[in-house]
Amino acid sequence: MAGGPLEGIRIIDLTSVVVGPLATQVLADHGADVIKVESPAGDLGRAIGGGGRTSGMSPKFLHLNRNKRSIVLDLKQAAGYAALMRLVKNADVLVWNNRPPSMARMKLSYEEVRAANPKIIYCGMFGFGQDGRYRDKPAYDSIIQGAAGVAALYHRAAGEPRYLPMVMADRMVGLIAAQMILIALIHRARTGKGQAIEIPMFENMAVQVLSEHMYLRTFEPPLGGTGDPRLLDPDGRPLPTRDGYVCVAANTNDQAFAFFDAIGRSELKTDRRFNSVNARFKNVREYYRIRTEALKQKTTAEWLRIFDRCDVPAMPYHTLDSLMEDPHLKDVGLFRVVEHPTEGGVINMALPNRLTGGARPDFRPAPKIGQHSVEILREAGYEEAAIAAMVASGATLDGRIEKQR
Amino acid sequence: MAGGPLEGIRIIDLTSVVVGPLATQVLADHGADVIKVESPAGDLGRAIGGGGRTSGMSPKFLHLNRNKRSIVLDLKQAAGYAALMRLVKNADVLVWNNRPPSMARMKLSYEEVRAANPKIIYCGMFGFGQDGRYRDKPAYDSIIQGAAGVAALYHRAAGEPRYLPMVMADRMVGLIAAQMILIALIHRARTGKGQAIEIPMFENMAVQVLSEHMYLRTFEPPLGGTGDPRLLDPDGRPLPTRDGYVCVAANTNDQAFAFFDAIGRSELKTDRRFNSVNARFKNVREYYRIRTEALKQKTTAEWLRIFDRCDVPAMPYHTLDSLMEDPHLKDVGLFRVVEHPTEGGVINMALPNRLTGGARPDFRPAPKIGQHSVEILREAGYEEAAIAAMVASGATLDGRIEKQR
Repeated sequence: MAGGPLEGIRIIDLTSVVVGPLATQVLADHGADVIKVESPAGDLGRAIGGGGRTSGMSPKFLHLNRNKRSIVLDLKQAAGYAALMRLVKNADVLVWNNRPPSMARMKLSYEEVRAANPKIIYCGMFGFGQDGRYRDKPAYDSIIQGAAGVAALYHRAAGEPRYLPMVMADRMVGLIAAQMILIALIHRARTGKGQAIEIPMFENMAVQVLSEHMYLRTFEPPLGGTGDPRLLDPDGRPLPTRDGYVCVAANTNDQAFAFFDAIGRSELKTDRRFNSVNARFKNVREYYRIRTEALKQKTTAEWLRIFDRCDVPAMPYHTLDSLMEDPHLKDVGLFRVVEHPTEGGVINMALPNRLTGGARPDFRPAPKIGQHSVEILREAGYEEAAIAAMVASGATLDGRIEKQR
Repeated sequence: MAGGPLEGIRIIDLTSVVVGPLATQVLADHGADVIKVESPAGDLGRAIGGGGRTSGMSPKFLHLNRNKRSIVLDLKQAAGYAALMRLVKNADVLVWNNRPPSMARMKLSYEEVRAANPKIIYCGMFGFGQDGRYRDKPAYDSIIQGAAGVAALYHRAAGEPRYLPMVMADRMVGLIAAQMILIALIHRARTGKGQAIEIPMFENMAVQVLSEHMYLRTFEPPLGGTGDPRLLDPDGRPLPTRDGYVCVAANTNDQAFAFFDAIGRSELKTDRRFNSVNARFKNVREYYRIRTEALKQKTTAEWLRIFDRCDVPAMPYHTLDSLMEDPHLKDVGLFRVVEHPTEGGVINMALPNRLTGGARPDFRPAPKIGQHSVEILREAGYEEAAIAAMVASGATLDGRIEKQR
């Protein structure tokens, strides 16, 4: 047993790439026993996301699959499907992130899974809600960002549509899926009942974007147009200094007035365009332009020292590389080099959140494909001969790192 | 009682603006009784985020505070503080999103709150982990994006650092906070014990960005640099067509080969630069350039029809306004005009996820400041005279919409 608040909860994880693996990572990191079921080809995330030291162990895969165990099952073979259903019988949750019709084709619809385990929580992530015309469309993070208005935000702020160059739709929806599974676990503890959960990416991202940017079209009839002008201002960005960039945000009166003092423009504190939250919101274009002009005058280090002294929220602008050298992140021990049994030294990131009730105490590095096939089949009651037959037919794959026993 | 999977769970919510209100929104939407405690000045989110039909009811506030009740308590007054502690005694969770020292100043440290209610789950969101040198710094979404490498992604892809113009750090961390609270609720149901949870924004966002973009620096010694080149490619964006833009993502072989056929470049299917996932990853610059060139030739509608027929993942590029007219979102009923008791017609977005176990059946529009002060104080056992005295001293504010009773 792993320990941690979710100890003993068993997740059968059919997901791949990012959205599903992120959801199950959260559960695994807090003690759930996540059994990653892979086809013989393996999670596409093993390859996509760049090369690693050995094949099928991309850096992204390493970051998203720690604390999980991998079993290979060829679900097209009867023996593979039977083994999955045996695992399902003793599981709390089944998670998947492909299209609903392909779950039906694999005989893994909710009805079929529930027949094997009536208390199961059956959670699917896919592109589009099943009551709408896009229901059968395939989805990836980027096209969801484009369809749900994320790319449009850059268009307004910077002049051309562009995705955020990280799979934020996958990530947000993965976080939401973990949430929904936890809610269903609480529901089951209270009522004894399992349930099915449907998590469409497009709708979830549309809600995240529009709850922020529906803006004056929220009202019916509308009071104005879409788009929060403060966030969409072209100068709402890390601002150039004499030698780099700095990030600054002075939102309350105290902060804004301290900022005006710091840039030597104390007279703006009583300027009616800038003397209240509402006034600065209305005149954000001009407020931000004044900021931009002023910050060119000194170096980043000078500004950070000044803003720190007067409690104006400000931070260094980090590149990916400087972020990895950030002294605060060193203080908190975010980066730890762990020895992976097959990949050598690998930087693992610690859990960022602290629970005084205790976290999962052990740590399992991301598994090789099929690394735990034999172990998991044994736990499920399979005899050695049956396991050997499955390996021989390709219904499973024995990916143990050390086979001497 | 609200119904829904979290029915009967009581949350005392001291949060403001976005990060905390989003976390408690998730809990409220699924049935928790969220008591929003506001200072007499009210949640800053009531004003920031634009004007509305009445003062203090900004569109963003409406989207983030439905299904909650509002009580005003002036915690600087003894009577206000005493009332909060009375609420805490009967609560399951206390949530806050200011800096830890200011919680201590208000006599609301974990030790003090736990003394009143040993089983409480005490969850704080703030900028920076308390073991690092940034511990006392103030934080807002934008500067966290800049510090945690989000702005740097845009820098690499498009040539200048820029925040995503939505508060994605607030949103991700808010989703994570809801998750941690749910995990702690499960832990408490199993052990009977409460706990404190600390959620630092900077560390959480660094983990989200770097688990994607630490890339070849994941290995020690490093196998190469940071940054997933596929995501950071300048042409990884909605692509111009003859009359607009289209979003397309052909990742698997089937999809990429269908795409090559669709653009009349079938010979690329056997081109060694593009004939496998790995090959396309290595030659992403060229692959994406070919895509960009090809898509200029036809209109968006033509491409969408073609890609739909051959199952290449593709979506329209939506502006914020066209997103609100999307026919699929109409099919699923995402947008519903509800009559707010003081704000008139307001577009509410339905919950995007379906739980067959049932959702919260009722719907409460976002509250006016102090709308439920009297109701909540009565529930806590306050006599009418005591409530009247608190109203008179300003320790609370009676914001009932209809005071005739």
